[in-house]
Amino acid sequence: MGLLSKPIKTLDDLFVHTLQDMYYAEQKITKALPKMIEKVTDPQLKQGFQTHLGETKNQLKRLEQVFQMHGESPKAVTCPAIDGIIEEADEIMSDASDPEVLDAAALAAAQAVEHYEITRYGTLIAWARQLGRDDCASVLQQTLDQEKATDLKLTQIAEARVNRLAV
Amino acid sequence: MGLLSKPIKTLDDLFVHTLQDMYYAEQKITKALPKMIEKVTDPQLKQGFQTHLGETKNQLKRLEQVFQMHGESPKAVTCPAIDGIIEEADEIMSDASDPEVLDAAALAAAQAVEHYEITRYGTLIAWARQLGRDDCASVLQQTLDQEKATDLKLTQIAEARVNRLAV
Repeated sequence: MGLLSKPIKTLDDLFVHTLQDMYYAEQKITKALPKMIEKVTDPQLKQGFQTHLGETKNQLKRLEQVFQMHGESPKAVTCPAIDGIIEEADEIMSDASDPEVLDAAALAAAQAVEHYEITRYGTLIAWARQLGRDDCASVLQQTLDQEKATDLKLTQIAEARVNRLAV
Repeated sequence: MGLLSKPIKTLDDLFVHTLQDMYYAEQKITKALPKMIEKVTDPQLKQGFQTHLGETKNQLKRLEQVFQMHGESPKAVTCPAIDGIIEEADEIMSDASDPEVLDAAALAAAQAVEHYEITRYGTLIAWARQLGRDDCASVLQQTLDQEKATDLKLTQIAEARVNRLAV
């Protein structure tokens, strides 16, 4: 946000602003994941990122659905948090000179992205309920469940394969 | 990281780099929290941030301890992720024109910070164990437990007070 942004006077404004922030974040993730898929070596990790790319595209559609349910047009506002998280992911993947170490770094970076999404969707669900919009909360919950499952799957790939190979 | 940074060839390099990243992040949080304490109105939220400021200072000391245990001097490397998360927190708190809405925004921003720390400490612990450094993992686990407890406490304050008052 900035000088030209709409002032945030109510919880409803905050809810809509955070939807816009996540709409930007999911678009950014959709662009970042193909580069990560290309760079990693471990086949399970590559497949995990590929599956999550498909899920992310559905999560964008779910956000569009919530915008519509709430009487708003889908719109993205710059989200410095996801920009920073993805910038850090790019940097660490450029600096890792060994393929197995790059996989471990990419997996950890993906978990940082997941955790950002987990906290934001958790907040959006709490605010939707507070605003009496259990219908919006229910759509957002589907995405939150998916993000938590992805984070858990990444932990399993890290423990069973990627971290072991990186030593 | 960037042109002048050390190449990351091994999981040990990645572990040390991520310790340096968190050393920067905790320092940045130590500077951001007093501004957040000043801006929020809800007394429980203010107290929660105050308590967490004390915990963050101890977490910095724990990182210094892990650096020493690992034979490294404590050093910070710029962490674009925490920079972005805190930039977003500053922006949303500037844009929120109602005190109760500002509290809800600040609480959510603090949870985004907590989740970044949860994912990074989780990763550091996994890598420490993989490197055979259960002693380092055990110190880092104390911080992870604290971050998770803070996140839970913030959720409780949100549900019981802050989100209700923001409507």
